[in-house]
Amino acid sequence: MPPKPARITAVDTYDIRFPTSRELDGSDAMNPDPDYSAAYVVLRTDAADGHEGHGFAFTIGRGNDVQVAAIEALRGHVLGRSADDLCADPSLLARDLTRDSQLRWLGPEKGVMHMAVGAVVNALWDLTAKRAGTPLWRLLAEADPAWLVRQIDFRYLTDALTPEEALTLLRRGREGAGRRTALLLERGYPAYTTSPGWLGYDDDKLTRLAARAVADGFRQIKLKVGADLDDDIRRCRTARAAVGPDVRIAIDANQRWDVDEAIRWTKALAEFDPYWIEEPTSPDDILGHATVRRAVAPVKVATGEHAQNRIVFKQLLQADALDIVQIDAARVGGVPENLAVLLLAAKYGVPVCPHAGGVGLCELVQHLAMFDYVALTGTTEDRVIEYVDHLHDHFLDPVVIRDGHYTAPLAPGFSAALRPESLARHTYPDGEYWTTDATTREERQA
Amino acid sequence: MPPKPARITAVDTYDIRFPTSRELDGSDAMNPDPDYSAAYVVLRTDAADGHEGHGFAFTIGRGNDVQVAAIEALRGHVLGRSADDLCADPSLLARDLTRDSQLRWLGPEKGVMHMAVGAVVNALWDLTAKRAGTPLWRLLAEADPAWLVRQIDFRYLTDALTPEEALTLLRRGREGAGRRTALLLERGYPAYTTSPGWLGYDDDKLTRLAARAVADGFRQIKLKVGADLDDDIRRCRTARAAVGPDVRIAIDANQRWDVDEAIRWTKALAEFDPYWIEEPTSPDDILGHATVRRAVAPVKVATGEHAQNRIVFKQLLQADALDIVQIDAARVGGVPENLAVLLLAAKYGVPVCPHAGGVGLCELVQHLAMFDYVALTGTTEDRVIEYVDHLHDHFLDPVVIRDGHYTAPLAPGFSAALRPESLARHTYPDGEYWTTDATTREERQA
Repeated sequence: MPPKPARITAVDTYDIRFPTSRELDGSDAMNPDPDYSAAYVVLRTDAADGHEGHGFAFTIGRGNDVQVAAIEALRGHVLGRSADDLCADPSLLARDLTRDSQLRWLGPEKGVMHMAVGAVVNALWDLTAKRAGTPLWRLLAEADPAWLVRQIDFRYLTDALTPEEALTLLRRGREGAGRRTALLLERGYPAYTTSPGWLGYDDDKLTRLAARAVADGFRQIKLKVGADLDDDIRRCRTARAAVGPDVRIAIDANQRWDVDEAIRWTKALAEFDPYWIEEPTSPDDILGHATVRRAVAPVKVATGEHAQNRIVFKQLLQADALDIVQIDAARVGGVPENLAVLLLAAKYGVPVCPHAGGVGLCELVQHLAMFDYVALTGTTEDRVIEYVDHLHDHFLDPVVIRDGHYTAPLAPGFSAALRPESLARHTYPDGEYWTTDATTREERQA
Repeated sequence: MPPKPARITAVDTYDIRFPTSRELDGSDAMNPDPDYSAAYVVLRTDAADGHEGHGFAFTIGRGNDVQVAAIEALRGHVLGRSADDLCADPSLLARDLTRDSQLRWLGPEKGVMHMAVGAVVNALWDLTAKRAGTPLWRLLAEADPAWLVRQIDFRYLTDALTPEEALTLLRRGREGAGRRTALLLERGYPAYTTSPGWLGYDDDKLTRLAARAVADGFRQIKLKVGADLDDDIRRCRTARAAVGPDVRIAIDANQRWDVDEAIRWTKALAEFDPYWIEEPTSPDDILGHATVRRAVAPVKVATGEHAQNRIVFKQLLQADALDIVQIDAARVGGVPENLAVLLLAAKYGVPVCPHAGGVGLCELVQHLAMFDYVALTGTTEDRVIEYVDHLHDHFLDPVVIRDGHYTAPLAPGFSAALRPESLARHTYPDGEYWTTDATTREERQA
């Protein structure tokens, strides 16, 4: 007897918030007191296997409810559809979501509405990988290249990357994939850590955490900069003294500067040999990044965590505006749009060093970087995934870091699922965490 | 006795929808069946004058509820504040809204969250102009240039426009403003009309409406293109025959094409002498617009109704990517961000031809164009405001078109207020329009 056809029977949303602002975890020049949050979605089916698809948009507190409302606006495109069809070809859903002619007006393909699309699309890919019984990175690495190309929306990309070029890149990337899968399983994927460098930490804490990062096997750390130049000079000196000359120090301004200021400030920190300057100015300013890059070399320019879609990444590459592409798993329209960005970066020969941290961004993005290594670029040279040691305990399949490397996940899916007890406890405003700690809640969410 | 200090006592929101898809009004290659909608906000105070500030984000149907939720997320920044202080210096509010460090993550400054900021900021400017007893265009034209400069957020602009340059432009623009005010009051501001050219109209309707537009005094019409090239060739020929050789015909692809396709398609229509090609490709594709512009000259390139913020306009100008800047009153962060765009366009010498139509966009944007004429660029040469004859009856101070010109509004405020009966009747889903016509409602909003 063939299995009963499965349908999507529920699109459940959750407003999940963590009070990270208490310890100034995550503090930077632009975001002094984030409360890491997730607009979270679960797709349920009537299949006997009981698999669910989990996805989310990451936010930093206020507005997480708006993000949830945006996910709910997509429900009509998902509910009742064949889970078998959608998992066989997730592009069927992705295209309906991005091309809804009325919802498109709210972007197009940017901000709240596009992150909502990303959450739902990623949830479908989580479901697809669970039903296939394989971790997402491996599903992507072993997929038929022609099928992968069909997942991608090439609209507005063809002046830089055509489907035919993408297919060639993917077919070439497949050569030697088996050997690299074995290497990945053995060694993992290199990571760097941002945990020592939050702007709210004092110098002692910075020194202690930087030294520990090196002892833990990391070959790169990152420091937040951009609030006060004298402080930044002192902190860069402190960090360099703590890690020695051979460990890379990236610096991150979180969009704090105008173009000219970015150039001046970065040059003032050049004596500490920063490896890259991240988000020197507005994520929308493609030409501005190009100007900064020309002026601050050999310091590299990195950006992308706030790049709204593939069209911005395309132009950053066309304009020679960056040295490092920083994809984010939950900012753009999900897995297929990030595949497009990985392919663009591969074509232009620019390494991808994913943004992570927040709630579950490490869990998600490791899959994309591992696919890139195994079946697209074939290298981890000058490539590192950001690692931040926050909130992993809330996930069912948390990332595992060993000797400065992400260990390849083995569980089926996209590692996106929060533990049921965390989901219940941190639901805002009715979860146990928020109702039993009302004073704190009001302070944080005022 | 001095007047009692006034506070903002309410930030009321409304989900307003009109069933425009029934007649295919507003249909184009990207938006086949829009239901013009407004996420509408009213600021109320406890002042004895009873003035309210009205503002809105325009959407085309589904997702208007998400847009309303985004406006509500801003309420905490507005409620209880001094109306006297905010009207004396609206930048106090605008900066708090755009720089909320947690809400900023949802953009930054783009999409749903930024349009919500624009709605609230515009509502405050409406209130400011009402309390001053003057139409907004005149308030802007007569304001102290230094005060106007302080209204603008120059973050991310200073590599193209500094506050000092803006002040110089505004001081120069003030010369002869009195004479131009008199001319504006006498003649109005030139308009063009899109009403003949919706994609869903047949050739007879196109011919009839195009001929009527010329008879009504319009010197430019606009045609939607981009769905089918053979149809476009026939429709351009039909329109050219109807209006003769001297009336300008703009064509508008509503982002339908990739870069190469935009070039091919525009060239295929060149024999009908189109004045500009509007939105040939993604509104995010600055470099793409530059490529199209180089290829299709002498046809001009126009864009901006979906440009998300001043940073995108800055780059479009820096990259020589357009011939016509099309501001939209309700897409960016309100009056002050549009002032920034007007100043950028003035500095780069590119004419501004505002986007309008939708719900109330004509009512709003006429004020910005009239300010530009009276007190910034001092000219209407090659400048026209879009006009579409939809839904004006729902407004308390509707635009008045006379001999192809917008008549300068005289009522105090930003002309943003819907009639109370329209507000009540078209509230979705509980207004009388929607509850008494349930079949239609379900068809349209499914």
